[in-house]
Amino acid sequence: MDMEATANGSIVESQRLLIDGPTNPMVTPMLTDLYQYTMAYAYWKAGKHDERAVFDLYFRRNPFGGEYTIFAGLEECIRFIANFKITEEDISFLHDVLPSTCEDGFFEYLRGVDCSDVEVHAIAEGSVVFPKVPLLRVEGPIVQLLETPFLNLVNYASLVATNAARHRLVAGKSKVLLEFGLRRAQGPDGGISASKYCYLGGFDATSNVAAGRLFGIPLRGTHSHAFVSSFMSPDEIIEKSLRSSDGSCTCEDFVSLVQTWLSKIQWLPSFRGIFSETNQSELAAFTSYALAFPNSFLALVDTYDVIRSGVPNFCAVALALSDLGYKAVGIRLDSGDLAYFSCEARKFFSVIEKEFDVPGFGKMSITASNDLNEETLDALNKQGHEVDAFGIGTYVVTCYAQAALGCVFKLVEINNQPRIKLSEDVSKVSIPCKKRCYRLYGREGYPLVDILTGENEPPPKVGERILCRHPFNESKRAYVVPQFVEELLKCYWPGTSDKPREELPSLQKIRERCMNQLEQMRPDHMRRLNPTPYKVSVSAKLYDFIHFLWLNEAPVGELQ
Amino acid sequence: MDMEATANGSIVESQRLLIDGPTNPMVTPMLTDLYQYTMAYAYWKAGKHDERAVFDLYFRRNPFGGEYTIFAGLEECIRFIANFKITEEDISFLHDVLPSTCEDGFFEYLRGVDCSDVEVHAIAEGSVVFPKVPLLRVEGPIVQLLETPFLNLVNYASLVATNAARHRLVAGKSKVLLEFGLRRAQGPDGGISASKYCYLGGFDATSNVAAGRLFGIPLRGTHSHAFVSSFMSPDEIIEKSLRSSDGSCTCEDFVSLVQTWLSKIQWLPSFRGIFSETNQSELAAFTSYALAFPNSFLALVDTYDVIRSGVPNFCAVALALSDLGYKAVGIRLDSGDLAYFSCEARKFFSVIEKEFDVPGFGKMSITASNDLNEETLDALNKQGHEVDAFGIGTYVVTCYAQAALGCVFKLVEINNQPRIKLSEDVSKVSIPCKKRCYRLYGREGYPLVDILTGENEPPPKVGERILCRHPFNESKRAYVVPQFVEELLKCYWPGTSDKPREELPSLQKIRERCMNQLEQMRPDHMRRLNPTPYKVSVSAKLYDFIHFLWLNEAPVGELQ
Repeated sequence: MDMEATANGSIVESQRLLIDGPTNPMVTPMLTDLYQYTMAYAYWKAGKHDERAVFDLYFRRNPFGGEYTIFAGLEECIRFIANFKITEEDISFLHDVLPSTCEDGFFEYLRGVDCSDVEVHAIAEGSVVFPKVPLLRVEGPIVQLLETPFLNLVNYASLVATNAARHRLVAGKSKVLLEFGLRRAQGPDGGISASKYCYLGGFDATSNVAAGRLFGIPLRGTHSHAFVSSFMSPDEIIEKSLRSSDGSCTCEDFVSLVQTWLSKIQWLPSFRGIFSETNQSELAAFTSYALAFPNSFLALVDTYDVIRSGVPNFCAVALALSDLGYKAVGIRLDSGDLAYFSCEARKFFSVIEKEFDVPGFGKMSITASNDLNEETLDALNKQGHEVDAFGIGTYVVTCYAQAALGCVFKLVEINNQPRIKLSEDVSKVSIPCKKRCYRLYGREGYPLVDILTGENEPPPKVGERILCRHPFNESKRAYVVPQFVEELLKCYWPGTSDKPREELPSLQKIRERCMNQLEQMRPDHMRRLNPTPYKVSVSAKLYDFIHFLWLNEAPVGELQ
Repeated sequence: MDMEATANGSIVESQRLLIDGPTNPMVTPMLTDLYQYTMAYAYWKAGKHDERAVFDLYFRRNPFGGEYTIFAGLEECIRFIANFKITEEDISFLHDVLPSTCEDGFFEYLRGVDCSDVEVHAIAEGSVVFPKVPLLRVEGPIVQLLETPFLNLVNYASLVATNAARHRLVAGKSKVLLEFGLRRAQGPDGGISASKYCYLGGFDATSNVAAGRLFGIPLRGTHSHAFVSSFMSPDEIIEKSLRSSDGSCTCEDFVSLVQTWLSKIQWLPSFRGIFSETNQSELAAFTSYALAFPNSFLALVDTYDVIRSGVPNFCAVALALSDLGYKAVGIRLDSGDLAYFSCEARKFFSVIEKEFDVPGFGKMSITASNDLNEETLDALNKQGHEVDAFGIGTYVVTCYAQAALGCVFKLVEINNQPRIKLSEDVSKVSIPCKKRCYRLYGREGYPLVDILTGENEPPPKVGERILCRHPFNESKRAYVVPQFVEELLKCYWPGTSDKPREELPSLQKIRERCMNQLEQMRPDHMRRLNPTPYKVSVSAKLYDFIHFLWLNEAPVGELQ
């Protein structure tokens, strides 16, 4: 081992020590397809295991019928390679699983494998990204072994972040978006990842305690229908006293205070005929919940009947709290016609504000949940509603509208030889060569086009005209004079190179980047219906090379 | 603490010691919705935390437009409760997250919480199950805290097992089904759980190394397109010798042997005009792979052109292997018209078998992959194909056709008081009471109906007529004379009761149960198009009680 290698080795070592392992401890070099190891053996056997390969990780189509995607999952990929190590137990398992003809030297080789000589360039996590542009460019000798874990860590993360961003765009900036999906998520960390990447894509909070703790995401939650049904009547409430908010006095019988308010509400002429008796188990549950959380009283009002029971019961408790100087938070609706009920509840609150002179009561927060998704949010907007916060679960976390993103990991160069993957389906042909990627911005500040070039081509220059070509369609091309040029791929894992390593930003920073990038896009790329595709192009030189290589590799048919 | 409690305590302790924690170490009491802890506080504050509640976990609709579901996830639920413990770190986090008004006594209480006084009855994992029938019945004082983790562990597990079973039914028993979904799965254990529950539902193997190791699932995998493109020409192969299968001789130049066979194939009159030159990098890759795995040579043949390059190259290598006493396994197709290519490849193999007199060559295995799902399998069957094994990824693991199952966890009794959850949507009304569940079988051995009864009702008897009523539809009812009665809910976690605990069977046994149960169902319930709904009923007594409680709880409107 020469001096340089030692120096590099210790840099790698120190980097590794600074970067935690993947969030889920099950993400190890064994979280992969078996063929990665059969191929590793075949490469080793052919003496090709030290050849440097370049792979691009990219997707071919934006999800959800849209024209944009949010890139997420990068931090987990870097954590994975920073801690990549095949353990003795792993090796012994592989030894059992692979054919007995596999030579021992291979297992010896696996013992020494790590990612110290792998180099990873990537687009910043949280960026708006487009088909065919490499999200990660991975180079090195054992890169094939990273394919499955990288795809697993990027595919779902990017899918759910994109889904969250789409929900945010429909809901509008002023609404609160809460992610409630853990119970329906695809497995335990389907839930945990969903909470992380929904937050990244623009949600405000989650119900998931584990995710809140792991990632510092704000947590939200109050009570369920079961809490309401678990009470029978206010008579069961034993501890009835509540101290006022400022501590100056104590109401000895909060239950009676609530009952008094309920009678007052019942006798309001405005509510004549709307309701008579409310459900007593619900009233008991609300009262108990307020006694437990006087500062943050939020009630689920649809267990029995929203307008005839839930809302009046809530108001009675909120007014009793108000007497003691507490301000109730609001209600949650979890069934029925959310637009209608939210408007009716708002009217109810406004009447209370006016009749009893309680300033701000009409602005009580209304949260809606129950199988919400992009379409239902859109429909609610069109109908008109009074909802302030949306709790979204199943549809956002399982990406119900499209449950998978199709990122692929394709070989583009080996031993400095560019490689292409052909296919009868043109959209599946890969763009060969180790490449650089740029985003070109126009006069109005919007991104105009992404362009891929060969590694050694001069970069596009501000104010200089450059020809952008569609990679596979001869006739699609355009000259662009960029006002600003952004190089997209940055070095996140330098391997043995001396490139500086980009820091991994906090989730909060990544979320801000995502929000800023979404803001920056031309609106027609972002709309739900018939969005305009954003253009992804290659340089003239790369275009020519792709087509030279294509002709070279494709077999020639014979007419008969 | 009296003697009995001590005795029970140590039984619970010993049970806990025998049961491992959940497969994913991230499954802890923190993997839950925050509202489970706000409710726990409100219960504690109201002195209700020691009340015994009964919750049912069930779903309301079968997934994928079908009329059956496979129940899975039970073992993980039992592992979870057997190891349920809120740590000091958890408590300190909850302390930070809950309002500062929460009293210290609550956190003290949480320190002592475990599941030793919880009782869990469940249907055996791997069973065919139906809407409204409780999959788990959970009783005890802190059961609310189990809601989110249980739903998370059951929802996806049952969904993906059902999806796998549906794929198996379409593919037929004779085909090999391989799960290849890890890279597109919803996060790391979306992948690991998928592999487990696909196997449970009838798949034969997985590509997922971690899942193979964790659950003893057979592993499969060979090579990818990148492996093929990473070679340039057979000239790069340095180590060219291959020992014969019986060790009796060594072929010093296997590369030349392959080339010789390729020429022989090229000159066969049957193939005149079908192909001329094959791709040399592909030939090099196949040859290398065969040198590494002479006993298990399976080649991906669609990197360049299936019929003009991949299949002839494969045959040349397979024939060379055959000279040395090795039997090649077959080919994999990953694009294009799989029906057509499989038939063409089969014809090619048959010609080779005949022309070169290689017995069995025509029966070479053909594996197909590339975005397969129930519909494409069905379409392939209708077209006719020669595929022996299907590799299925995205569509089976992400349950693309329906990405979530809607299991719910509803309170049905508290302090021996039955509870009902009403809803304007009748399908969402819960069936109250602690219940027993039976499956009644008819003369032909098929299950006829599931029936739910109150806990203390006498069980249905073989040969005795019993009235089975639809729980919510007055006019739907039928008399049944069962030939066999199976009680569905068994005790998997006895808590402080002295009931014997059902063993948790191996995954292999659960899979067998699933296969047997699917076999036993009347075929019209199982078909893909317009399946007949299987009937789920309640006893006459339970029916009356549901409707009594319903009237009692629903508010009465006022006409105006």
